[in-house]
Amino acid sequence: MIRFYNAKILTVTDGCSITEGELWTDGSRIAYLGDKPAELPAFEREIDCGGDLLMPSFKNAHTHSAMTFLRSFAEDVPLQTWLFEKVFPYEDRLTPEDVYAFDKLAILEYLASGTTAFFDMYFFPESSAQAAVESGMRLVFCGSVNGTAKDVDRLNDQFQKFRHYDPLVTYRLGFHAEYTSDESLHREIAKLAQAEKEPVYTHISETKSEHEACIERHGATPAQYLESLGMWEYGGGGFHCVWFDEADRQVWKRNKLWAVSCPCSNAKLASGIAPLKEYLADGVQVALGTDGAASNNALDMFREMYLGAVLQKLRNNDAAAIPAASMLKAATWGSANAMGLPDCDDLAVGKQADIIRIDLSAANLHPTHHIPESLVLSGDRSNVKMTMCAGRILYENGIYHIGTTPEAIIADAESRIERLTK
Amino acid sequence: MIRFYNAKILTVTDGCSITEGELWTDGSRIAYLGDKPAELPAFEREIDCGGDLLMPSFKNAHTHSAMTFLRSFAEDVPLQTWLFEKVFPYEDRLTPEDVYAFDKLAILEYLASGTTAFFDMYFFPESSAQAAVESGMRLVFCGSVNGTAKDVDRLNDQFQKFRHYDPLVTYRLGFHAEYTSDESLHREIAKLAQAEKEPVYTHISETKSEHEACIERHGATPAQYLESLGMWEYGGGGFHCVWFDEADRQVWKRNKLWAVSCPCSNAKLASGIAPLKEYLADGVQVALGTDGAASNNALDMFREMYLGAVLQKLRNNDAAAIPAASMLKAATWGSANAMGLPDCDDLAVGKQADIIRIDLSAANLHPTHHIPESLVLSGDRSNVKMTMCAGRILYENGIYHIGTTPEAIIADAESRIERLTK
Repeated sequence: MIRFYNAKILTVTDGCSITEGELWTDGSRIAYLGDKPAELPAFEREIDCGGDLLMPSFKNAHTHSAMTFLRSFAEDVPLQTWLFEKVFPYEDRLTPEDVYAFDKLAILEYLASGTTAFFDMYFFPESSAQAAVESGMRLVFCGSVNGTAKDVDRLNDQFQKFRHYDPLVTYRLGFHAEYTSDESLHREIAKLAQAEKEPVYTHISETKSEHEACIERHGATPAQYLESLGMWEYGGGGFHCVWFDEADRQVWKRNKLWAVSCPCSNAKLASGIAPLKEYLADGVQVALGTDGAASNNALDMFREMYLGAVLQKLRNNDAAAIPAASMLKAATWGSANAMGLPDCDDLAVGKQADIIRIDLSAANLHPTHHIPESLVLSGDRSNVKMTMCAGRILYENGIYHIGTTPEAIIADAESRIERLTK
Repeated sequence: MIRFYNAKILTVTDGCSITEGELWTDGSRIAYLGDKPAELPAFEREIDCGGDLLMPSFKNAHTHSAMTFLRSFAEDVPLQTWLFEKVFPYEDRLTPEDVYAFDKLAILEYLASGTTAFFDMYFFPESSAQAAVESGMRLVFCGSVNGTAKDVDRLNDQFQKFRHYDPLVTYRLGFHAEYTSDESLHREIAKLAQAEKEPVYTHISETKSEHEACIERHGATPAQYLESLGMWEYGGGGFHCVWFDEADRQVWKRNKLWAVSCPCSNAKLASGIAPLKEYLADGVQVALGTDGAASNNALDMFREMYLGAVLQKLRNNDAAAIPAASMLKAATWGSANAMGLPDCDDLAVGKQADIIRIDLSAANLHPTHHIPESLVLSGDRSNVKMTMCAGRILYENGIYHIGTTPEAIIADAESRIERLTK
């Protein structure tokens, strides 16, 4: 058991609120949360938080972790040039070992910025699972089939293999996007989801042109077209959801789907600003993700929360467009539930101990008039003092406890990148 | 003399470029920059940079440092409510000692994020000068008169007192804004600037309503109206410049004025996105500033560079809108020259040793395909390993060398904030 005492404790489920007290973990779970009791059990470690904040860790609800290898490879070029000349040809060369190495590079960044789980869509799920489990992080892998209906067999094979792969690794059904596959594939995926009673995830309405091309092809927006095929009888969600109209939002609301927003990627690729204000007003569930490092270029949920909040102000010409704290809830509770990790969504007895400690002595968080708002509008990853996943401290005071050194991970990644991009 | 060796050295004046070698400082200046010579002089300290990057420090070309006391005090409220209910009444209570204490709080954040100079517009310049000099930072104080013509005497008094106040402290003529003063004041300031052959700075065209109200009042935009009074015969600049039209940009170009952009503040207050792409295309000089902590809410030039870059992509629906590296130049060379600190604008022999060391071993900066672009799009203040101003190391590996502790500064600030805001 580990004891954290002298702490502020932030919970997010019913609005952000802060209490003072202590939190104990036992194995992978939170065993106690409250005032100091009269008698204390024996602990393997007791941590005086010195008034610092404990809060639920961030969960990254959309990423392509191994794309770290293309970070800063091609900047300031138009989207199509970037994708077809600077991404796809290099991804074709990737081996499973490369993906493992580049996932590890991403994990360094996740842990230092307080993220303990990532919803990853990429090649070679086994490589990602190995990187996550070795590091002690949670991975939810998202299917990413595209092409034709025969790919559904591969999707189902992956799903069956990884759905209960490890306490830290699960799998969700998914496909790349409406525009990279055909109706027969969509129907097969919907059939599989119904048979397995599983949610389905996909990139959706990220760019205006893709959104409009679907209307031309199918006479309906991607959200409405896919709903008509029975895709979401058991829930799921969409990545990006930038160009949704009111009817699309109603699809999302009535199917209880997650709008996983990636504000930094949508900004860097000039895709647009998702209507988060409307989602929150309509009761559409919002989560946050970074997308891959090549289109962001950081893997830092603080930046997603910040941009998520301030871009709504610009989009709506209204400094009061959305409450900043809504982004804190989206990046923790929202993302956890979007990924199917309800056991990791908040700090409460019995939940998984996926916890970060925020250094409230940092100058950028003073004064502390409103801590949740400060985390969104002033906070950054340098405020993360500790990251714990499933009861294990994986990062503390700048030091990683993940079985290998950052230097080794970076050296391995760099030598592979040299081979891949030369 | 201090020797930095085994370094990458970034210079920015003629586009961002990187060489490998060493850099020596002697007193406040850079004494050598290049390959390791055959013979080395004696040094008081030799620092192995281990391949890290040395670059010119950031200069914050627009701020109200002491507004740290209102950080996170009132979030998500409309601009007018915020200003009139949550800012002005509390500022009225400030003493000179308060401003000193809140400037010190800001300085903690400046140094940890690599900023060595700040262009400050606020009350009590003597307090700010004391805070800067004690900490070893540079302050350029900007006049901020408003009201009627009699204030020009006070402006001139301040100017004469602070123009050569300290090697670290200078003063620039300035006034709050067109909309908070009248034509007689503007004419008096222009006369003073002409007599002293000095540049003039002011908030300008920050919000659409303020820009349009000037057109109603004077039949011209703020830029064109103030030019017609002879305000800028000796240069200067404007803070924000969000709503400039093409003719305004020409005013700025022909008078060689600085457009000091504050992307984070303009986003948080929903003021808009400044047309930086057009400024760069037209040859208008661009600098960056944070504005005060109450409207940002960080004092971190990394965030300004990042937002400066990505908001142009959104504004122009073009992922290639401006080169990311242009924001690196704006935050260093641009801001230094905007503030009248040409001696601090880059790394070169004879220039002031205002230098930061960037930890290139950090995971978020790998791979290192394009370092300048990575600093803008992936970098953050946790990558700052050392901050040197005028040859003195003020911050290194998380430790401040500014004559007092962060704990004492924060405790003093918090007790004053409690008094002011209760």
